[in-house]
Amino acid sequence: MKNEICTLNVNLAERSYPIYIGANLITNSELYRPHIHGQQVLIVTNTTVAPLYLESVMSALSAYQVETVILPDGEQFKTLSVWQQIIDSLLEYRFDRRCTVIGLGGGVVGDMAGFAAACYQRGVYFIQVPTTLLAQVDSSVGGKTGVNHPLGKNMIGAFYQPQCVIADIDTLQTLDNRQLSAGLAEVIKYGLIGDPEFFDWLERHVDGLMAREQGLLAYAIERSCSDKAAVVAADEREAGNRALLNLGHTFGHAIETGVGYGEWLHGEAVGTGICMAADLSRRLGWLDLGAQKRIEALIERAGLPTAPPSGLDADRFMELMSVDKKVLNNRVRLVLMRQLGYSVVTDEFESTMLEGTLREYGRAAS
Amino acid sequence: MKNEICTLNVNLAERSYPIYIGANLITNSELYRPHIHGQQVLIVTNTTVAPLYLESVMSALSAYQVETVILPDGEQFKTLSVWQQIIDSLLEYRFDRRCTVIGLGGGVVGDMAGFAAACYQRGVYFIQVPTTLLAQVDSSVGGKTGVNHPLGKNMIGAFYQPQCVIADIDTLQTLDNRQLSAGLAEVIKYGLIGDPEFFDWLERHVDGLMAREQGLLAYAIERSCSDKAAVVAADEREAGNRALLNLGHTFGHAIETGVGYGEWLHGEAVGTGICMAADLSRRLGWLDLGAQKRIEALIERAGLPTAPPSGLDADRFMELMSVDKKVLNNRVRLVLMRQLGYSVVTDEFESTMLEGTLREYGRAAS
Repeated sequence: MKNEICTLNVNLAERSYPIYIGANLITNSELYRPHIHGQQVLIVTNTTVAPLYLESVMSALSAYQVETVILPDGEQFKTLSVWQQIIDSLLEYRFDRRCTVIGLGGGVVGDMAGFAAACYQRGVYFIQVPTTLLAQVDSSVGGKTGVNHPLGKNMIGAFYQPQCVIADIDTLQTLDNRQLSAGLAEVIKYGLIGDPEFFDWLERHVDGLMAREQGLLAYAIERSCSDKAAVVAADEREAGNRALLNLGHTFGHAIETGVGYGEWLHGEAVGTGICMAADLSRRLGWLDLGAQKRIEALIERAGLPTAPPSGLDADRFMELMSVDKKVLNNRVRLVLMRQLGYSVVTDEFESTMLEGTLREYGRAAS
Repeated sequence: MKNEICTLNVNLAERSYPIYIGANLITNSELYRPHIHGQQVLIVTNTTVAPLYLESVMSALSAYQVETVILPDGEQFKTLSVWQQIIDSLLEYRFDRRCTVIGLGGGVVGDMAGFAAACYQRGVYFIQVPTTLLAQVDSSVGGKTGVNHPLGKNMIGAFYQPQCVIADIDTLQTLDNRQLSAGLAEVIKYGLIGDPEFFDWLERHVDGLMAREQGLLAYAIERSCSDKAAVVAADEREAGNRALLNLGHTFGHAIETGVGYGEWLHGEAVGTGICMAADLSRRLGWLDLGAQKRIEALIERAGLPTAPPSGLDADRFMELMSVDKKVLNNRVRLVLMRQLGYSVVTDEFESTMLEGTLREYGRAAS
């Protein structure tokens, strides 16, 4: 695998950009060079990633004026006030509008760095260097940036495309197991949305992925990004089918908000959310019990929880889901599975069916 | 003039939108209707405008769920924390992504409401109802939204286009004289950028404009928006010639930052900034003394200051100008006049010439 770089192009007209996938990429000056336009580079990272990779990235960028912002690590810090630290730094260093912001870290770092790049002087250059599996397969494609609000996740943000994404699979070796599993939740999601062949592949290779075999990881990232890119290219601003990417997310966001950001990892919540979506799809007669069991089994083998934490009963779930962005005109729109590997966005289901799932999975505080 | 509505289209491909200019428009339900897509409308206004026009606008929108946010009035409140009040309200009212944010007021309200619309759930619908001359001729076109930062004006923001702009000239009757003059600074600017014929017209009609003759106001707004739209359509994201619109602004921003936001009106600072740009253009041999005098005379007849306040000496000016967005790679880029009615963006001038202007206009605290 060493020295093989796979380049995947995300096609969005004048906002198209490449994703580089491979080993030993973050130290490769040549990858960054065509995407940096001025002399000024701000690397945004966090306290976990900085000791591991900041120095390597800085040495690859020694030709530029490089400044850094090191944020606290965790979804609970994905707030407007922490985000402001990035803006403050850009101003304190007097960075101009040709500067480049690099997000080095997981999804939280990428979302905040990207949103800072989107808003600083109404938009400067942005490069994403995702160091978690979740960020590599999810944030790499789609241009979603933003921060959370106490009343809802990702409620403040922008669609903003990077100049390029550098997904270095070497960085996955330092990831803890929970983070690796969280990433696999999104990988499995792509199979379920519209790529049944990939779902089959994942069933065969989930153990190898958990063992961090580089060839398998590289393939899973490439296929996930490619699947996501196809959806995003058709619907950049989430007017229609892009909502498919929210499979498991409406349930998942309710879990994250309900237990407080930072308790459950996003991917863990999505893993459980996928199980809940599968349950509702089965109740609607769209998915057979066998398929539901296969999905649950794969989620479990990927080291993910298949049920929400106690403390969220059906009523609380419903309340949390109703502030989610996927609610239009007070109807809950969900991504559900018509069959294994084929999902749809729909609000055409009896609310009693949804209540059935929420009662099945929701539990009062123990 | 009554009941005549002029519609000017700003052409930006899929982000094109109409500007409606005329009398008695804000109460016209039919104007809003095609541009509101959901049921939820948030009107953002301020403590000065609310008692004058909020009720009229609300009654025109009685078919919708209308909520309001009333901000304090003034440039000093164009901050991230005041902006957050808009976001908080959107979330507290549980507005979904099909909601519409209406900015009812001057440039500050429009910039903050527009930036909230740009960021809420990564972008919701936005309608601008500018009630000052400045906002009608400036913020109506171009999609610039944002807030100030203690270290620089408009440093946080987004390019975000409205669904439509409703410029009701009746609202100019309640404007105080300083505000009217501030708007005329931008009007004069359009003449100087590239419309010498309009400059001549302004010299003939400035007294009538100061007397708020409706026909003259409507014409000046239409021509200003049309001039600006032509520049913006060619360069939506300010990569090149759009910077022409900053004539007078780099000097002006330095004045605003130097005296503290809210002391001088933006348009007043731009008025003086135009005089300073004219002075530098004359020093460079581009503008003759007669033209410089005509420009100064028109600025003065429009009720605007032609010199900065005391307390800003040449050094402080230079320091303030160097954090401005128009600085690239440490060279100051300015909009200067090659001749009356024809401006260029340039950093090709001797810095001693700029120093000459700053020494001429800068004064230590008295």
